[in-house]
Amino acid sequence: MSERADGRAPDELRPVTITRNWLDHAEGSVLVEFGRTRVLCAASFTEGVPRWRKGSGQGWVTAEYAMLPRSTNTRSDRESVKGKIGGRTHEISRLIGRSLRAVVDTAQLGENTIVLDCDVLQADGGTRTAAITGAYVALADAIAWARGKGIVKASKQPLTGSVSAISVGVVGGVPVLDLPYVEDVAAETDMNVVVTGDGRFVEVQGTAEGVPFDRSELDALLDLALAGTSQLAVLQAEALAR
Amino acid sequence: MSERADGRAPDELRPVTITRNWLDHAEGSVLVEFGRTRVLCAASFTEGVPRWRKGSGQGWVTAEYAMLPRSTNTRSDRESVKGKIGGRTHEISRLIGRSLRAVVDTAQLGENTIVLDCDVLQADGGTRTAAITGAYVALADAIAWARGKGIVKASKQPLTGSVSAISVGVVGGVPVLDLPYVEDVAAETDMNVVVTGDGRFVEVQGTAEGVPFDRSELDALLDLALAGTSQLAVLQAEALAR
Amino acid sequence: MSERADGRAPDELRPVTITRNWLDHAEGSVLVEFGRTRVLCAASFTEGVPRWRKGSGQGWVTAEYAMLPRSTNTRSDRESVKGKIGGRTHEISRLIGRSLRAVVDTAQLGENTIVLDCDVLQADGGTRTAAITGAYVALADAIAWARGKGIVKASKQPLTGSVSAISVGVVGGVPVLDLPYVEDVAAETDMNVVVTGDGRFVEVQGTAEGVPFDRSELDALLDLALAGTSQLAVLQAEALAR
Amino acid sequence: MSERADGRAPDELRPVTITRNWLDHAEGSVLVEFGRTRVLCAASFTEGVPRWRKGSGQGWVTAEYAMLPRSTNTRSDRESVKGKIGGRTHEISRLIGRSLRAVVDTAQLGENTIVLDCDVLQADGGTRTAAITGAYVALADAIAWARGKGIVKASKQPLTGSVSAISVGVVGGVPVLDLPYVEDVAAETDMNVVVTGDGRFVEVQGTAEGVPFDRSELDALLDLALAGTSQLAVLQAEALAR
Amino acid sequence: MSERADGRAPDELRPVTITRNWLDHAEGSVLVEFGRTRVLCAASFTEGVPRWRKGSGQGWVTAEYAMLPRSTNTRSDRESVKGKIGGRTHEISRLIGRSLRAVVDTAQLGENTIVLDCDVLQADGGTRTAAITGAYVALADAIAWARGKGIVKASKQPLTGSVSAISVGVVGGVPVLDLPYVEDVAAETDMNVVVTGDGRFVEVQGTAEGVPFDRSELDALLDLALAGTSQLAVLQAEALAR
Amino acid sequence: MSERADGRAPDELRPVTITRNWLDHAEGSVLVEFGRTRVLCAASFTEGVPRWRKGSGQGWVTAEYAMLPRSTNTRSDRESVKGKIGGRTHEISRLIGRSLRAVVDTAQLGENTIVLDCDVLQADGGTRTAAITGAYVALADAIAWARGKGIVKASKQPLTGSVSAISVGVVGGVPVLDLPYVEDVAAETDMNVVVTGDGRFVEVQGTAEGVPFDRSELDALLDLALAGTSQLAVLQAEALAR
Repeated sequence: MSERADGRAPDELRPVTITRNWLDHAEGSVLVEFGRTRVLCAASFTEGVPRWRKGSGQGWVTAEYAMLPRSTNTRSDRESVKGKIGGRTHEISRLIGRSLRAVVDTAQLGENTIVLDCDVLQADGGTRTAAITGAYVALADAIAWARGKGIVKASKQPLTGSVSAISVGVVGGVPVLDLPYVEDVAAETDMNVVVTGDGRFVEVQGTAEGVPFDRSELDALLDLALAGTSQLAVLQAEALAR
Repeated sequence: MSERADGRAPDELRPVTITRNWLDHAEGSVLVEFGRTRVLCAASFTEGVPRWRKGSGQGWVTAEYAMLPRSTNTRSDRESVKGKIGGRTHEISRLIGRSLRAVVDTAQLGENTIVLDCDVLQADGGTRTAAITGAYVALADAIAWARGKGIVKASKQPLTGSVSAISVGVVGGVPVLDLPYVEDVAAETDMNVVVTGDGRFVEVQGTAEGVPFDRSELDALLDLALAGTSQLAVLQAEALAR
Repeated sequence: MSERADGRAPDELRPVTITRNWLDHAEGSVLVEFGRTRVLCAASFTEGVPRWRKGSGQGWVTAEYAMLPRSTNTRSDRESVKGKIGGRTHEISRLIGRSLRAVVDTAQLGENTIVLDCDVLQADGGTRTAAITGAYVALADAIAWARGKGIVKASKQPLTGSVSAISVGVVGGVPVLDLPYVEDVAAETDMNVVVTGDGRFVEVQGTAEGVPFDRSELDALLDLALAGTSQLAVLQAEALAR
Repeated sequence: MSERADGRAPDELRPVTITRNWLDHAEGSVLVEFGRTRVLCAASFTEGVPRWRKGSGQGWVTAEYAMLPRSTNTRSDRESVKGKIGGRTHEISRLIGRSLRAVVDTAQLGENTIVLDCDVLQADGGTRTAAITGAYVALADAIAWARGKGIVKASKQPLTGSVSAISVGVVGGVPVLDLPYVEDVAAETDMNVVVTGDGRFVEVQGTAEGVPFDRSELDALLDLALAGTSQLAVLQAEALAR
Repeated sequence: MSERADGRAPDELRPVTITRNWLDHAEGSVLVEFGRTRVLCAASFTEGVPRWRKGSGQGWVTAEYAMLPRSTNTRSDRESVKGKIGGRTHEISRLIGRSLRAVVDTAQLGENTIVLDCDVLQADGGTRTAAITGAYVALADAIAWARGKGIVKASKQPLTGSVSAISVGVVGGVPVLDLPYVEDVAAETDMNVVVTGDGRFVEVQGTAEGVPFDRSELDALLDLALAGTSQLAVLQAEALAR
Repeated sequence: MSERADGRAPDELRPVTITRNWLDHAEGSVLVEFGRTRVLCAASFTEGVPRWRKGSGQGWVTAEYAMLPRSTNTRSDRESVKGKIGGRTHEISRLIGRSLRAVVDTAQLGENTIVLDCDVLQADGGTRTAAITGAYVALADAIAWARGKGIVKASKQPLTGSVSAISVGVVGGVPVLDLPYVEDVAAETDMNVVVTGDGRFVEVQGTAEGVPFDRSELDALLDLALAGTSQLAVLQAEALAR
């Protein structure tokens, strides 16, 4: 690959925008855009926890991911109409939930629950990584809201750090960062990496789509991902500072 | 009711905005806002028709309505997670589909299908009427797209007119137009009216929430609705002219 | 249309029969017939209310509508076999429930629930209107039963009036009352109207099947419906007096 | 048990009525009553067979059994609302289908399908045996209809005999025939027996509800069942002769 | 039929093996083999009973039967993937549960529940009868475990006897015992018989697959079944004595 | 951690056994054991491919994973009874399918489908890695069967290599190989690694259960995994050579 379709350098992110308070009702909400990928992240704070966690003194953070039927190039059937949730949706919802819990001290949260709804309004690759990156900001806003209201004591800080995510892959033999759909379908290897603000790994999910990959390719992809998520961490911090 | 909560006159619409081409992939797409109610309408044009309509020479137009879990003040469970679609969702999807088909000559459309996805991003009353009003514009764009591409011959015009919808109701004894949520829950009578651009009725759905209503109340509500939809028809035409 | 297929005048009901106590177990039961349309309405009275209503001091009335697979000319698949309830079934169940609640003072009912099961044994148009008309009588019997048993104090009267329903439509340009299937499929406009015994509206649901309709057609249909439901109210009263 | 609750002798059937043509649309229909048990059996004849049987030259006969929610003393939830069919319903549907196929020569039927819908309007024990007994008559009418129409050639006779069914059980130590609900719940042993018109067995389903039973009890029950079904065979023939 | 495909005499069982403690976690577990039919039976003992049985002082025993997708000659779809359980699975699960409860005194069990999972690893006819025969041994082990642990007092003996099951059928005019798949599909009559250790019947389920059967055939089949189950009772006792 | 609960060295596998042809019907079948974890892998070869792949000339390999209800220490509800498949099951089924497809040249397979059913009979950690390791052997047997039968030409070799999988994790600060359940629940970091016989990666799925992990921990885990899978590749080859 002499050059990427959109002219970016291999280690360059797409334009990223993080718009807070996109919704009036939610305790935290973010419209996050990675290029043409657009995900609406809504954080709902509710007092109480699921039954299996009652009496533990600990809170819970979970996530649900979904795509609007026409977020993609070709319309997909609604999972509500099909009457069941597909494997991919389950997988990504669980990934987002685990990623956020990695930076939450549930004991500090108290017996409260935060649900992050990540609905893809438009998809162009990287929807799960955009969702994690945006959901963290919505989560931070919901926690700030609860501390402001005194539902979580101001002396408690449930957040232990920040978290973001990016996709990396080998396309035409070249390791690249933040793949749009057109690169995603062409990638030999595809990896999603979730990283904390201080540069440690929360999730590493690499898949050989075609040819298996070796250790040096893996290392190159991890390098790209760490560089990309460190930029995302800055963008998250800037958004929260506004 | 001496005055409405938001200061409007009884026969006054909320601010209405119709943003076309909000999505990159769909053949027609509109973000429609009635005050704080915000609905994303995507029109998907596909060649071919459902099995039961094959060989008829006629096209098909249908709609699916849904609310994002946190479009409302309190989070609702996803219908995909519950594994079934609720009665209200079914009812509104069917209403939108019927309303649009009232202004489509399916023979002119040929054996093509247009699906209108109306997803409520934020709800503040009147989501079904906003959805119909926005979906008509997305439908018009999808038809124009198909005629431009020659999938529908330019000599054919599947649209036979325009259609919009508004809610009316009796609140505190006063008939009012375009009810936000706070008025909707307080209304004694609630009516949704779907009207063509030339002022004829497509649907009249009136429900006594508390006390049954008499003929004069019904007449007053229909007057309000006709006035409201004639304004919406102008806004639709202006949006399509841009 | 010079004449209707079954020889009726435009404003003439089909023969209506209301047979009370058709079942041995139910607290109220009615076999209602509008011509060949035959609906079995069973009222089940149970002490207690759904969870969301507990402690309110108020009762609840709800309805479930269904069609037997061979009630229609061509056999339909069972919704239990398909594993989900269709939109039309949901819509009609909700309509029946709302219509009956319009004439019930739930505070007088106390924390008791009445479920009205309306099962269509044979369908020939107007099944939802026959169901509402018959269900009211079954409901009245169930309430009388509860007052007789002392479950509802005799000094309480949960019923605030009676309710019935009829279909009206424009067929071949002529407004007609109480459409059988053959007229229903040919109607340009189709309306179901639910009216109290004292002539006020509970529901008005009009749909343009083909050409949208104007104000004068709407007025003519409402006139027919009010005349028809006033006859039904008499038949209900006579049945309850037997 | 000195005497049965309803005064019958141990080997006496409840009053049985078989009303043909209870429905206008179905190709065969029967309202069958065993005492207070009341089952509506509708036979739907359709040309063609399920996919797995296509090209075999053979027809198919199947059945679906269901109970209306208030057919029983206490209301049951609808299986359509629960979204799945219970084990008992499945079991009985399969039993009815097998029983009827035992007297059908599917090669004579040609590639046609007959579905028997057996809906219990009122239940007082023995609903499955009443259903089989009534469904046979509806089936015979549907086959006669098809032969009359020439859809099945008049020279073909798909029916190879008749079939009926009855319940027997040991109640208070006494073997009895045709148990109503009050005896059914008290029975130590409960058996449903399906027998052809010429006295051979199609199904024998015996269950020890409490204490296991021995060979002599089994023999006594089979004697009762054969006597009962021979009476039912006469009643079926008389009904078909009317 | 001069001879059976596997050379057995008409009244001869296939080789039966009962391997206890095949699993490490379950309170009782058995791998039971009837020839090539192989069923894994796991007994799970839990304190407490289903809600509808609470406060009764009585325990509960239930069973769930399932087949692995490739237990059969041709792969079947998973019921979990299809989203619903088929009629045959329901029927057999219920049969196993009833059969085991026939030899359990639930009052002696106390408010404890035992679930028997019977998963068919390989199917070659007679899976339900093997399941019942093996599940009884797993049940006995689970009860012994609970008495050993003192969860059920050692002075209590919930088991009132033993139970086993076998299939019998008429193949080529000859009554035979313990049918493998190849005989099962060819059988004119097929019967499953569940018998206690002292030779009394718990269930008799006979079905004419083709031609209805007469009383003498029924008697011959019952004789075979009683002889077969008396051998199985010995094998069960031997297994439990090891 | 001075020592592992079962006395193994940190880089030591549990005893692994691979038993081929455990089933009589399947084209390939393996009972694979990693210590007490026991998974039955059945390969079903069928001619033809799913609809979306027809005419491509390419075959398809897919997998379904499930756990028996009592494979675990505490009984779990069946997914067939719950009516839906959980997210974890979906995730693992998809992982197994992708892993096997990484070593299959679907063009060489021709338009044939192989389904790998991996049913966990007993679970003690590492069920997905045991499933992949065993499923590869069953897959190889099914392909050999098809080449032997001439369904796949002997000149074609769909297998491009072998694949196995192992879990690694950090427990008590020490990177360890092949975690049993007791270590799995205690692990700070948990990783499943799928590796080809020539030492390249097919999947790397690492998750920080508690504290995020750094690059050096990741490297140590990958080293362990490569060593473990190279041993598994030898065991697979030995099993296939028997």
